[in-house]
Amino acid sequence: MKCAGIVVEYNPFHNGHLYHLQKTVEKTGADCIIAVMSGNFLQRGEPALVSKFSRTKMALAAGVDLVVELPYAFATQKAETFATGAVQILADLGCQYLCFGSESGKIDDFYRTMNFIEQNKELFNRSVQTYMKTGISYPKACSMAFRSLNPTGMMVDLSKPNNILGYHYMKAIKKQHRSITPITIKRIHSDYHENNLSPKGISSATSIRQALFSQTSFPIEAHVPKTTWNELIRFKKEYGTFAHWERYWSFLQYRLLHIRPKDLKNIYEVEEGIEHRLIGMAKEASHFQAFMEKLKTKRYTWTRLQRIITHILTNTTKEEMERRSEKVDYIRILGLNERGRKYLRKYKDSFPTPIISKISSLTEEKIYLDVRAGRTYAFGFDPPFRQQMIQLEYARPPIILESDGRPSIS
Amino acid sequence: MKCAGIVVEYNPFHNGHLYHLQKTVEKTGADCIIAVMSGNFLQRGEPALVSKFSRTKMALAAGVDLVVELPYAFATQKAETFATGAVQILADLGCQYLCFGSESGKIDDFYRTMNFIEQNKELFNRSVQTYMKTGISYPKACSMAFRSLNPTGMMVDLSKPNNILGYHYMKAIKKQHRSITPITIKRIHSDYHENNLSPKGISSATSIRQALFSQTSFPIEAHVPKTTWNELIRFKKEYGTFAHWERYWSFLQYRLLHIRPKDLKNIYEVEEGIEHRLIGMAKEASHFQAFMEKLKTKRYTWTRLQRIITHILTNTTKEEMERRSEKVDYIRILGLNERGRKYLRKYKDSFPTPIISKISSLTEEKIYLDVRAGRTYAFGFDPPFRQQMIQLEYARPPIILESDGRPSIS
Repeated sequence: MKCAGIVVEYNPFHNGHLYHLQKTVEKTGADCIIAVMSGNFLQRGEPALVSKFSRTKMALAAGVDLVVELPYAFATQKAETFATGAVQILADLGCQYLCFGSESGKIDDFYRTMNFIEQNKELFNRSVQTYMKTGISYPKACSMAFRSLNPTGMMVDLSKPNNILGYHYMKAIKKQHRSITPITIKRIHSDYHENNLSPKGISSATSIRQALFSQTSFPIEAHVPKTTWNELIRFKKEYGTFAHWERYWSFLQYRLLHIRPKDLKNIYEVEEGIEHRLIGMAKEASHFQAFMEKLKTKRYTWTRLQRIITHILTNTTKEEMERRSEKVDYIRILGLNERGRKYLRKYKDSFPTPIISKISSLTEEKIYLDVRAGRTYAFGFDPPFRQQMIQLEYARPPIILESDGRPSIS
Repeated sequence: MKCAGIVVEYNPFHNGHLYHLQKTVEKTGADCIIAVMSGNFLQRGEPALVSKFSRTKMALAAGVDLVVELPYAFATQKAETFATGAVQILADLGCQYLCFGSESGKIDDFYRTMNFIEQNKELFNRSVQTYMKTGISYPKACSMAFRSLNPTGMMVDLSKPNNILGYHYMKAIKKQHRSITPITIKRIHSDYHENNLSPKGISSATSIRQALFSQTSFPIEAHVPKTTWNELIRFKKEYGTFAHWERYWSFLQYRLLHIRPKDLKNIYEVEEGIEHRLIGMAKEASHFQAFMEKLKTKRYTWTRLQRIITHILTNTTKEEMERRSEKVDYIRILGLNERGRKYLRKYKDSFPTPIISKISSLTEEKIYLDVRAGRTYAFGFDPPFRQQMIQLEYARPPIILESDGRPSIS
């Protein structure tokens, strides 16, 4: 069986994701599509709108054959570490292709950019350091350093988020000596319509989330598959709300006002004396948005700050993250259809990394960071929904879709 | 000036407390009454109904001249440590008398009991150990060991909570070589009326709190001074609710589901492997009462369990408590009237322990446990009241009552 891998968050799954999925099948001719998906906390340091199980349902309904979890130790990290974990999982699961969306859309430009940076590594790194001394953030410094080297030929614009991720997938494939072929698909934007693929609109997940929270007359139904829409409605009915940062503010504030500064310094990514600033602002702010606005400086991107406070909320230490992000040492199955099941049955024994399909006392220690993140996520919901979600983290087996065909475009 | 000290919680101040206060003045002829009062968390391991500032107002309105805080490191402890801190503070403030309420009411019986136990110390301790091995709690074992020694003569019944406290005040006075005269006043019960003191009913604080929460037709107004009643109404109007354990359940559960067992073992009083039990029950329980009922065993009294979870909620470690409960090294003024002010002005310079009347960056480290407990307390109230209370802990100077007379009985 030919297998292609994709790296996703699906927050929530929308028509743009469907396009990416269909293009992946078309370009690779794969019999099986595996998605490695972030759990309940995402790369930008925020809780997912709906739980990983709910997002797994959306993915399966749209035709993904096997959904596995990108562990917390990789999912809530900067692009490089995020990509390292994702590539390892897809390669360990035997994928021949990694198909990613990018603003560029040209795989040759990625190769050229990667080679260029490698050849000018020292110069590049020195330049990044120089830009950072002016007080700007790391991603911005990287993009400026790259431009300052005056690359010639067609290069990838490394100030674009999906280009950065793609670049790091390719770097990880090379570094890990994996025989995965990278393929990129140009992302299509909200104003871009292609009739045979998406008769309805394609919007960013951000704009869909915003519309969900602001209750505008934005026609979300037209921008997501029917299956996503139904699942969103079901989730909200079952758990009372969608998750977002404001719903965690009480717990974050409680945590910040009770932790000793020296213990706060043990939390992953808390560096450079920011612990005092975090505690000070928590005393003053009355809600999450106000807290973040007080906290924000030129040096820290909003994303980096959100990742820091995610680790504070989940109580994740430097020691834990460093140990757990060295190497993926388990792969948790979140859901699968008949094709996914066949694929697993056929190749399972050749996987170098153990597969976990349900938490047991044997596996709990290993996946403790994910379990704890699952519990943290539950606190964004009011009782008794919270309690249901805490229990579910333990009791839930993988979601199974009893079908082996891909649904047609809705 | 002659000064008498009392040790109080005033949760809330009621007619029985008024009786105790008036008897204290009558028996000692003191010009100044100092109350050392527990802060926001009490000896039985629970949040006070209303804040320490609100309870200070009740105390001043009833005629206490100076209210100081019994630090968290003593207030949330077993009787012996609680008494050690209270006696030190009253003695350091120059009190000649310590006047406590007891079920016994006979000071000679206390002396006799203290001497008897001292003379039979070894036998007593061994007997306590033997009883504890049967799996019963420490307080129960003490009372049974005492009885098993067959004391002759009039003794104090050490199974009664106020007798136990009184016994420990007297032991502390002796151990600290303080020249304070202990006086005891027999507690009068709800069915006991004495017209010239309390024309209205005297009820326990427990029954008054229960009535406040259950909204029965219990005539609370008849059992508390008018000033207490007004303050209770004002507090509830200002902060939206009275505090009780259920209001802290979310934060306790969050804490227990995020702390690593090895870190939980660092929390004060978490011993004998109870950390695993605490975490396990927190996963299962959906509210505080259910949690406690699951947690309860013969070995642990409800009070001891509540003290343990208070320390978990406030994040108080063994190291912190052991260091801070060695010796009282500050006295925080919560409120005073004109008499109290005069007393302080006259004797302040002779006090061996520094007085704190407002938190500053200089004093914050010293009283950090109290500040943190104050913050914890705030989380029992919804935003924006919570935020007000957090700010108040810092900004609030002592409550001042501009009067020097004692109010008449209401």
